[in-house]
Amino acid sequence: MTTELLFKNIKSKKSFLCIGLDPDLTKIPKHILIEEDPIFEFNKQLIDATHHIAVAYKPNTAFYEAYGVKGWISLQKTIAYLNSKYPEIFTIADAKRGDIGNTSTKYAEAFFTDLNFDAITVSPYMGIDSVEPFLNFENKFTVLLALTSNIGSHNFQEKTINDTTLFEEVLKESLKWKNSQNLMFVVGATKADSLKKVRAIVPNNFLLIPGVGAQGGSLEEVCKYGLNQQVGLLINSSRDIIYAGNDIDFAQKAAQKAVEIQTQMAGILAQNNF
Amino acid sequence: MTTELLFKNIKSKKSFLCIGLDPDLTKIPKHILIEEDPIFEFNKQLIDATHHIAVAYKPNTAFYEAYGVKGWISLQKTIAYLNSKYPEIFTIADAKRGDIGNTSTKYAEAFFTDLNFDAITVSPYMGIDSVEPFLNFENKFTVLLALTSNIGSHNFQEKTINDTTLFEEVLKESLKWKNSQNLMFVVGATKADSLKKVRAIVPNNFLLIPGVGAQGGSLEEVCKYGLNQQVGLLINSSRDIIYAGNDIDFAQKAAQKAVEIQTQMAGILAQNNF
Repeated sequence: MTTELLFKNIKSKKSFLCIGLDPDLTKIPKHILIEEDPIFEFNKQLIDATHHIAVAYKPNTAFYEAYGVKGWISLQKTIAYLNSKYPEIFTIADAKRGDIGNTSTKYAEAFFTDLNFDAITVSPYMGIDSVEPFLNFENKFTVLLALTSNIGSHNFQEKTINDTTLFEEVLKESLKWKNSQNLMFVVGATKADSLKKVRAIVPNNFLLIPGVGAQGGSLEEVCKYGLNQQVGLLINSSRDIIYAGNDIDFAQKAAQKAVEIQTQMAGILAQNNF
Repeated sequence: MTTELLFKNIKSKKSFLCIGLDPDLTKIPKHILIEEDPIFEFNKQLIDATHHIAVAYKPNTAFYEAYGVKGWISLQKTIAYLNSKYPEIFTIADAKRGDIGNTSTKYAEAFFTDLNFDAITVSPYMGIDSVEPFLNFENKFTVLLALTSNIGSHNFQEKTINDTTLFEEVLKESLKWKNSQNLMFVVGATKADSLKKVRAIVPNNFLLIPGVGAQGGSLEEVCKYGLNQQVGLLINSSRDIIYAGNDIDFAQKAAQKAVEIQTQMAGILAQNNF
C-alpha cells in the first residue's frame, strides 16, 4: 500500500475511519461463541458489515495473544481474510513492538512478510536501530508511538527534554532515520491542541488517532489541527463500534455506529474541499 | 516464583546466568531441521544440556512470531517444557510489550496466565497505566526497559529530563507505581558506569543485564556496581551460548560456553561471600 492509494480510498469512501478489532470472548455476542473460531467469525461479520465505511482495520495483538495459539490462528485468518476479500483496506497490526536490530527485523518479518500487514505500531523507547529495521520495508508503514491518549502519557512523553517534550523529540529524531517516509505516528486525540505542535514537526506523515468519542476527543478539533494535503489522519474507534450491539444484529449495530462517525467525516472532508 | 527462591537458586547453582532462547532456522544445526518442530527440539536440547548451569531462560518472542502459528506453538511447548521439567528455573518472556490499561491486562494474561512465564519485559514509554496491569500479578515480575545496550539508547534514554536522564526518570517514577516490588529492570551491560546511577535509585530490584561478552560488557565491572544483598543480577547471554556449536554436539558446545561464564560467576559470588 502507498499513501497515495490510501488517500484515494479516503476520498472515494469519504472516510478516514479505522476500526479497531479487539475481540474479547467475554464481550462478544453469545450466539457467536458456538462457532469453531468465534474470534474470527466476530471479526469477519464486522468486516463484512463495515468494509465500505472504513479505510483501515487495526487488530490489537494483545486480544489474540491472550488466547494463545488459537488466538494467533484467529489473527492470521483475520488478516488473510482482509487481504484476500478487501485488498484496498489498509491494515495495521497494533503490536507496539520494538527491540534491538536483529530482533526488530524478526518482528518486521512476522508482521510485514508472514502476516502481510500494511503497517505496525512500534514503541520508540529503544531508538534508531530498533525502528529502522521496520522502515526498511517498501510500501509498509511503521506507526511510531509519539503521544498516547492514556494517563501514563504524562509520566514521560510530556516531560521536558532538550527544551521540548519527549514526544516532540521522538518526532524530530525519527525524521532523521533512514526511510523516514515510511513513518506514521500515534497521536492521542484527547490532546487536540498538541496536534498543532505535532503538525509543525511532521506536516506530511499520516497520524493514527485513537481516543475520539468515548475517550473524549473531538473529531472536529482533531481535524482542525491535524488535516494535511493527503487528509493525513486515520481516526481509530474500537469498542464504540465493535460492541455497539451484543445480539444477532451486532454487525449492523456496528455499521450504524461506524456510519455515524463516517457521516461526520464526510462533512469535514467536503468543508475542506477533498 | 519469588526473589527469595531465585536468590536461593543462584546460591545453589553458583550462577546468575540467563540463557536467551532466540532460535533462528537459518542458524540452528542442519540435523535439527528434519525434526517435526525444529525450534522446540533445538530449545529442548539446549535446556537439557544447560539447566544445571543457568538460573533463568529468556525466549525472545520475535524469534517465534517470525514463524507465525508454528512459532507460537514452539514457544508454548518451550515454556511448558521448562515449567514441567525444571520448575525451579526462572522464565522471562522477552516480549517488550506495553499498551493502555485493558490491553496490557490482556498481554499480562497471555504471558503470566496462559503461557505461565515468571516474568515479561515491558516498555515504559506509555507510563503508569500501561505497566501496572502487569504488576498486579503476584509472584510475577515485570522487567521494565530502563537503559538498553544498543546504539539507539542514546536517542532518548540518555537524554536529560527533569535534571536527570530519561532512564533514571523511568526508574524513579516506576518505583511509585502500585506493586513496584514486582519490578525488575533491563540495564545494558555495555554501560557498567551507569549501573552506579541505577543502583543509587533501585538498590533492591533485580536487574536483567544483556550485552555481556560479545557486545563488550565486562562481567566484573557489572558485578562491581550491580550486586546487591540478593545478588540482584541476571546476566543474559543468547547467541554466544546457543550458537557456540553448529553440529551434532551443539548442545554440549553451548554447555561448555555456559560453564565458562558460570565459572566466572562462581568466583565472583565467592569473593562477595554469597
